[in-house]
Amino acid sequence: MKFSIDATDDKSHARAGLITTDHGDIETPIFMPVGTAGTVKAVHQRELLDDIHAQIILGNTYHLFLRPGLDIIEKAGGLHKFNGWSKPILTDSGGYQVYSLAEKRKIAESGVKFQSHIDGTKYEFSPERVMDIQRIIGADIMMAFDECTPYPCDYKYAMDSMGLTHRWLDRCIRHFDNTEANYGFSQTLFPIVQGSTYQDLRQQSAEYIAGKGREGNAIGGLSVGEPVEEMYAMTELVCGILPQDKPRYLMGVGTPANILESIKLGVDMFDCVMPTRNARNGMLFTSDGIINIRNEKWKDDFSPIDSNMPGYVDNFYSKAYLRHLIIAKEILGAQIASIHNLSFYVWLVQAARNHIKKGDFSIWANQMIKKVTVRL
Amino acid sequence: MKFSIDATDDKSHARAGLITTDHGDIETPIFMPVGTAGTVKAVHQRELLDDIHAQIILGNTYHLFLRPGLDIIEKAGGLHKFNGWSKPILTDSGGYQVYSLAEKRKIAESGVKFQSHIDGTKYEFSPERVMDIQRIIGADIMMAFDECTPYPCDYKYAMDSMGLTHRWLDRCIRHFDNTEANYGFSQTLFPIVQGSTYQDLRQQSAEYIAGKGREGNAIGGLSVGEPVEEMYAMTELVCGILPQDKPRYLMGVGTPANILESIKLGVDMFDCVMPTRNARNGMLFTSDGIINIRNEKWKDDFSPIDSNMPGYVDNFYSKAYLRHLIIAKEILGAQIASIHNLSFYVWLVQAARNHIKKGDFSIWANQMIKKVTVRL
Repeated sequence: MKFSIDATDDKSHARAGLITTDHGDIETPIFMPVGTAGTVKAVHQRELLDDIHAQIILGNTYHLFLRPGLDIIEKAGGLHKFNGWSKPILTDSGGYQVYSLAEKRKIAESGVKFQSHIDGTKYEFSPERVMDIQRIIGADIMMAFDECTPYPCDYKYAMDSMGLTHRWLDRCIRHFDNTEANYGFSQTLFPIVQGSTYQDLRQQSAEYIAGKGREGNAIGGLSVGEPVEEMYAMTELVCGILPQDKPRYLMGVGTPANILESIKLGVDMFDCVMPTRNARNGMLFTSDGIINIRNEKWKDDFSPIDSNMPGYVDNFYSKAYLRHLIIAKEILGAQIASIHNLSFYVWLVQAARNHIKKGDFSIWANQMIKKVTVRL
Repeated sequence: MKFSIDATDDKSHARAGLITTDHGDIETPIFMPVGTAGTVKAVHQRELLDDIHAQIILGNTYHLFLRPGLDIIEKAGGLHKFNGWSKPILTDSGGYQVYSLAEKRKIAESGVKFQSHIDGTKYEFSPERVMDIQRIIGADIMMAFDECTPYPCDYKYAMDSMGLTHRWLDRCIRHFDNTEANYGFSQTLFPIVQGSTYQDLRQQSAEYIAGKGREGNAIGGLSVGEPVEEMYAMTELVCGILPQDKPRYLMGVGTPANILESIKLGVDMFDCVMPTRNARNGMLFTSDGIINIRNEKWKDDFSPIDSNMPGYVDNFYSKAYLRHLIIAKEILGAQIASIHNLSFYVWLVQAARNHIKKGDFSIWANQMIKKVTVRL
């Protein structure tokens, strides 16, 4: 993996960059649609390419490990072959879902024991095991096994957890460096900064992670319920320590405004389930603001979903039709809203990139933040 | 509406025809995907055109009447404008759903009182009201308001019900002929033959319906649980009486084999929820036979879903991937399987048409019936 910076903003820490992988290039800042179980929910792979213009998608290690299972993914020749997505894939470490979804989880120095939320089967994830799993899945970008602390989290727990995350990271790196990619293309490993909302812990963690000299670095444990000001403060602090010349990935963030603010702080990569999950509930992020399509006011609004956007769903379908589909719980409603929201997110980071290159990013971003937070 | 016959099969009653409407041509035999609430479930409108090659879709009057409601459809300028489908639409009369879905329905000479299955609101459908509703929806082909008898049905009930259906038909025709289309394109009205599985009643009903001289005719009350031999016997009897030079529509039928057998008997038009409903449960109709994709045997079959078919989903996605999606209840599984099944149904009737024109329909149909009934 390579990373180069094309342009930087002089009024913020925003930068426009390019990540090169064996599955193609990723222009940053980038938003990565979440493809939980090897599918971005309600979206065809050709729609990811042609309508959403996704350059990289996520897979969730926990979900893929349980279903379809590693034997199937390995026989297929990796996730790219299994789901037909030929551009880059990033997988998380599975840790987040083990803590949020799995049952009866037990964290120890060696790793985490848990039971599947699907059928109760017992499993254990360790740093080494999670590296092996991501080798089998065949992600272009693999994530280190960490503990994502909840919010609020007392200082002692956050400090001990950060220590564990760091020790696990060393085991991940050792195992990663001693194993090879399975499918003939390169994989890289991103470590994750933790430390909850404590400045000294975040600083310590960022320094530890920076010291590992990996090809990219991630910020975890944010967007878990803390006030947005704390999220930005931690992100700013960490971005100031993580190396300039490596991409920075802020995990699980966020709203369009969160993304623009974080780009200002020097973040390059984002993922979030919000555009797809909220889409299925009828919440649309548009260039004019936020629409709850279930509201009565849209019932006879036959204008396009978002005529400022160039895509098929934005111009072909009306707000009134989409409202009807969502109210009637029709699958097509989830499909249309998901494509719209993801298109908007990818358009937004691409527009940010263009404005960074053009030199007017900060002015544009501040205007845009106002627009995208309006509730229509 | 116009209907012309291009070719007939000399070993059966099959015919290849062309229906002309103000929204374009329909080559018969045709299969019409069911678009219950103004959407063919899990399928984008452009996929109906480009992948499935649908020439006409159905809308369900009962569902559309309840949601989004007539006020919205009328304000949109009719269903074509509301959902963006610019080819022909056929609507049923709403009767079937009133009997199968609505609560506390009460049938009288004047019409049917019922309560919405969604919120219990009380409504009444009469022949006149149902004509008005279909005028507002703006279907190219409207259906008469009938009573669809259940199976089994005693003779007395079937006879009385048939009488009611005929009296309602006269009221439908009177009201239809005294009203005009709302949106500047022509609408036509198909009457429906009833009579359960009683030969004399079916004959009487077919003669009554034939005598009305409408532009097309439908056969209702079949595929409701009766043995398939009885369905074919009734269809054969009725097709022998309904005029040759008008399209014949066998409502709610059926499996690929049912469709081929019924084409032999002289049926021109079909609709059925089976390809979409069964798709969502993982049942695929393919050119090699029936696949239950949930079966263990497909878990590591990475071959295309149906390489005999030309479409995107058939060749892009593998059986193993589709199985994973269906097992994991992922929306994309319903999307892929629905497109596949509908493409196959439309391909099948188009192939039937080509073989009728080519002169080898009966041989081909008999071979095909064997193939499509095999369970793989």
